[in-house]
Amino acid sequence: MDVVEVVPGFEQYAFTFGGVAPLRRVRPGTALRLWSDDAFCGALRAVTDLSSEKVDLRFVNPQTGPFYVEGAEPGDTLALHFVAMEPARDWGASAAIPFFGGLTGTDRVATLQEPLPDTTWIYELDRARNTVTFAAQHTDLRIDLPVEPMLGTVGVAPPGGEVRSSLVPERFGGNMDTPQMRAGTTCFLGVNVEGALFSVGDGHYRQGEGEACGTAVEGAMTTTLIVELIKGGAPVWPRLEDDTHWMTVGSSRPLEDAWRIGQVELVRWFGELYGLHAMDAYQLLSQIVEAPIANVVDANYSAVVKARKSLLPPSSAYGGLHDELRSRAASLL
Amino acid sequence: MDVVEVVPGFEQYAFTFGGVAPLRRVRPGTALRLWSDDAFCGALRAVTDLSSEKVDLRFVNPQTGPFYVEGAEPGDTLALHFVAMEPARDWGASAAIPFFGGLTGTDRVATLQEPLPDTTWIYELDRARNTVTFAAQHTDLRIDLPVEPMLGTVGVAPPGGEVRSSLVPERFGGNMDTPQMRAGTTCFLGVNVEGALFSVGDGHYRQGEGEACGTAVEGAMTTTLIVELIKGGAPVWPRLEDDTHWMTVGSSRPLEDAWRIGQVELVRWFGELYGLHAMDAYQLLSQIVEAPIANVVDANYSAVVKARKSLLPPSSAYGGLHDELRSRAASLL
Amino acid sequence: MDVVEVVPGFEQYAFTFGGVAPLRRVRPGTALRLWSDDAFCGALRAVTDLSSEKVDLRFVNPQTGPFYVEGAEPGDTLALHFVAMEPARDWGASAAIPFFGGLTGTDRVATLQEPLPDTTWIYELDRARNTVTFAAQHTDLRIDLPVEPMLGTVGVAPPGGEVRSSLVPERFGGNMDTPQMRAGTTCFLGVNVEGALFSVGDGHYRQGEGEACGTAVEGAMTTTLIVELIKGGAPVWPRLEDDTHWMTVGSSRPLEDAWRIGQVELVRWFGELYGLHAMDAYQLLSQIVEAPIANVVDANYSAVVKARKSLLPPSSAYGGLHDELRSRAASLL
Amino acid sequence: MDVVEVVPGFEQYAFTFGGVAPLRRVRPGTALRLWSDDAFCGALRAVTDLSSEKVDLRFVNPQTGPFYVEGAEPGDTLALHFVAMEPARDWGASAAIPFFGGLTGTDRVATLQEPLPDTTWIYELDRARNTVTFAAQHTDLRIDLPVEPMLGTVGVAPPGGEVRSSLVPERFGGNMDTPQMRAGTTCFLGVNVEGALFSVGDGHYRQGEGEACGTAVEGAMTTTLIVELIKGGAPVWPRLEDDTHWMTVGSSRPLEDAWRIGQVELVRWFGELYGLHAMDAYQLLSQIVEAPIANVVDANYSAVVKARKSLLPPSSAYGGLHDELRSRAASLL
Repeated sequence: MDVVEVVPGFEQYAFTFGGVAPLRRVRPGTALRLWSDDAFCGALRAVTDLSSEKVDLRFVNPQTGPFYVEGAEPGDTLALHFVAMEPARDWGASAAIPFFGGLTGTDRVATLQEPLPDTTWIYELDRARNTVTFAAQHTDLRIDLPVEPMLGTVGVAPPGGEVRSSLVPERFGGNMDTPQMRAGTTCFLGVNVEGALFSVGDGHYRQGEGEACGTAVEGAMTTTLIVELIKGGAPVWPRLEDDTHWMTVGSSRPLEDAWRIGQVELVRWFGELYGLHAMDAYQLLSQIVEAPIANVVDANYSAVVKARKSLLPPSSAYGGLHDELRSRAASLL
Repeated sequence: MDVVEVVPGFEQYAFTFGGVAPLRRVRPGTALRLWSDDAFCGALRAVTDLSSEKVDLRFVNPQTGPFYVEGAEPGDTLALHFVAMEPARDWGASAAIPFFGGLTGTDRVATLQEPLPDTTWIYELDRARNTVTFAAQHTDLRIDLPVEPMLGTVGVAPPGGEVRSSLVPERFGGNMDTPQMRAGTTCFLGVNVEGALFSVGDGHYRQGEGEACGTAVEGAMTTTLIVELIKGGAPVWPRLEDDTHWMTVGSSRPLEDAWRIGQVELVRWFGELYGLHAMDAYQLLSQIVEAPIANVVDANYSAVVKARKSLLPPSSAYGGLHDELRSRAASLL
Repeated sequence: MDVVEVVPGFEQYAFTFGGVAPLRRVRPGTALRLWSDDAFCGALRAVTDLSSEKVDLRFVNPQTGPFYVEGAEPGDTLALHFVAMEPARDWGASAAIPFFGGLTGTDRVATLQEPLPDTTWIYELDRARNTVTFAAQHTDLRIDLPVEPMLGTVGVAPPGGEVRSSLVPERFGGNMDTPQMRAGTTCFLGVNVEGALFSVGDGHYRQGEGEACGTAVEGAMTTTLIVELIKGGAPVWPRLEDDTHWMTVGSSRPLEDAWRIGQVELVRWFGELYGLHAMDAYQLLSQIVEAPIANVVDANYSAVVKARKSLLPPSSAYGGLHDELRSRAASLL
Repeated sequence: MDVVEVVPGFEQYAFTFGGVAPLRRVRPGTALRLWSDDAFCGALRAVTDLSSEKVDLRFVNPQTGPFYVEGAEPGDTLALHFVAMEPARDWGASAAIPFFGGLTGTDRVATLQEPLPDTTWIYELDRARNTVTFAAQHTDLRIDLPVEPMLGTVGVAPPGGEVRSSLVPERFGGNMDTPQMRAGTTCFLGVNVEGALFSVGDGHYRQGEGEACGTAVEGAMTTTLIVELIKGGAPVWPRLEDDTHWMTVGSSRPLEDAWRIGQVELVRWFGELYGLHAMDAYQLLSQIVEAPIANVVDANYSAVVKARKSLLPPSSAYGGLHDELRSRAASLL
């Protein structure tokens, strides 16, 4: 299986979902190896690089893409299977950007208080040990943490002619910022425009659930993925599948609405997977799901709802595509 | 180590935190084996028992307690270590109560729509296999699910002379409805009144995160716990510790505020545990926590924020009390 | 018509709804002239009196009451008609209390930022001109503002044995902090316990909608009101009537839920007043109501929904009680 | 003063802010008389026209525009002064669209309940009496209501290359759905792109605050307005001025965040108008503002915060532009 490599130049970065000409056309079945810059476009390289000085907030979360998937039409389902994610630099950066994040007033949670101190943390990557190192700024504490690569942002062009910032998580995917978006996961997104026009970016070498301070261990990433297309069957909201879980992601504000969206989408999916009446799916899921918060910091907040396959009878979605993609992926590794 | 057994009669059930005379006085260090009735006071025993007909919503979540802890004063910290939780009946019940739950209009999310159909599910318990069985009402699907016992409700009397329904999760604990409240967990609560006046109840044979439909697999429970008292050091919001995680629970509305509370309490705790400045704790936790939603259905919503100990340098809280209680608990099993 | 005067001593102040023995028993039809202290118990008397130093936040919003209304039973409707409200001191006080208010992080909107500067403003009262004077602290601006007296807090004992702080607005009324609670208004509250046990307090010499900084021009107040009782007919949430409007008050979080509650209660009331089907009431009210925010700072947020009588056919609530009370009130002035 | 008349054909309707080529270029100072279709593109003409059958929800809130304002650059302030709004048809329509509105589950407040009944109301216009008539569907009640024309939607192209649906209220204005957007009001919007690219639409013959059911008395409208441009000075969020009030509009979710945004923007404006320190403006506004909810049904919720000029010392914004525009407008009537 061939792998098409794409390393965009800065002038090719996309900063929106929709509104950008395709970077490249791909056929369903294509494997891509994509380099993506970090959320700050690489501007934070030392703890003395403050986000207020170095980061142009109009140009963050650069996307690699968009890719025009041949044959994709509105109502179809795009499947992106993540084969591998590898840190593409030897350090990641995180920052407490003034008036951005979950434990501070923001442009939305508008208060009159002073911002938190503009602070940058640099995480050195140890490839041999596969760790990044947290280094406290006010004490000597240093902690090595496992690298657990993920993509903050995976999305397609929105419907209705909208164009949205790459900071936004929505029905079309986007900046969902969930650690579930990692190697081994298949992401199903409804197609809204011809060609789907998907893009990826915002690599995280690791991230806690909630992404409390607003930024993860942000790092350039090399992502290997396989693109597939299912005619029809578009989910209303993003669905994820890995070897262990059925998952949905809801994004809105307040956070309970994000959760409601994810929960209803999983009720809907369980109707398809198990022929369950909505009330029975509502009941069953009430007793089995995990519900990790994804982010409480983006333009919408995101919540994941996930059901463990091992608790459930066997079933398959989209004709067993995830398992098939796992097999294909194995040949790439 | 002796264990004091308490099985309250119906007329001894408490339905509030605060406002009730102590059921019994206990000394710190006491082990208790407590029987608690299910959230419905045992009223739902068959799928034909509908909540609108059988459940008096003024009398739900019956509490076993309150217990007056000798020596406990406002500002102290009550520690409850859960040694064991065992289903006390051979079935659990769950219900979609009209206008109650996460995917329906409620008395707060007030809409003009008709309620969802009043439905009861009964989960038979198989003690040998340690499972409860989900039985769909609209199809033939039956699924055996592992019993994972937990308590929905653990709380003390509130401050300021308030008395709160046992449906409420708050700063004083209460109806937090998190699966983390299980055997092996130590729960730390700030003491607000002399004697602390804690109570427990609302046993769940299992529950998904979010408790979407509003009720878990509700069941009478026999809970073994050890009571300890730490002078001073009251946490602002409930803290939990088990062998693997440091945890906090925030409860409020909207859900992002519940999460904020939990996240800030864990920042505070990490200041104590690791001497971290708040900005460093904010950063570190942003990269490592798990943030499972507890419930999106109660009078306040609850979110858990938890940090895995294995990612962190060794530390101990409250003089290593959790580990000590684990040892003491071992002698009880 | 006689007027019973009540001036409580400090030791008689109530700080909760419920949980307090009646200050006095009154018969329906009684007129009361009640002195109430300001929200700070009079502790802020100069701009140098800072809330963090002078105010014990456990003892704010002192209530005058509770009053046991003879014959009041659960399910009945208490009507309180406000005849007059007169400032009882020559100054009012307002404060930006650290971590309290709408444009700051709070104990619920938990952030890590520094508090806003603890600041007190004193408003001198000019009885002749009926004004209070805003005096800026950072510039020389002084503005005379009309006195528009209102009560922040009017409530009864909650149901279910709950006891709630006098800072809480809820189904039982309480700290709704709406300027609509003024002379000329009749407030209808559902009775939850024998005797209703109502109290009033938290006088404001004036307040903007939203009560943004968390405190109004707080002042001791002399309130003249008439107590009436309607057997049965308890509204689900507080209803207000004055000569020009039908009004409801919803209180919850997030603010949209407070609004939903008020809007649904007015739909319900319009069913009674005009025999309207809920869908027709929903439609009609969508085109005619005013919806002023009451507060976005209390334990629950409150929203008022009000319909102008002059837009509507004549109708009367509770047997025309409001008009009758207006007549009776005239004899008291 | 000349007036440029624009009546777009259906194929010229815009359904987004941004992303559309200008309909026409205008010089600052131009007066426009604009015809706009109703929110349903005229599809609802009888009570038997149900929204689920007749309305294509991808094409609602048609905009008249966008207009390219010569000389407008990012950071400038666009002023639109509304001279007159006149119903352009003899009837208005309102509808309870399934899963849309404030008292129903929606795509965001996702529940599992059945939708409210799809219902359409037609309001006949009586030009002589200047009324529209509410006609109940389930009873015989008919109520004549004054026509109070307003525009739901007034906005410019968003920043950052975004394109947003005309259903969205945001920083760029848009679907704010506030009755304040009426003849006599000047609306100040920050310019984000060259030419500003403003458009208007979504005429309402009247609307209650909150727009509870999701639709007002929707009607085609002829709007006369004057376009002006102020170099620089872009407000962060929309500001409105009329003869009596200074106003701001915040839009977000949850509703408290919309309110916070509006309140902070008014604090900021009072700094400009009166030289007030933010803490003094916070205090003063806490005692004087009105805070009517605009809508609780759109993609973002909107809240208005307004301060009555008569309570305040004289001041003027943007060089007294509003007063000047009032004079110019007089010559057009």
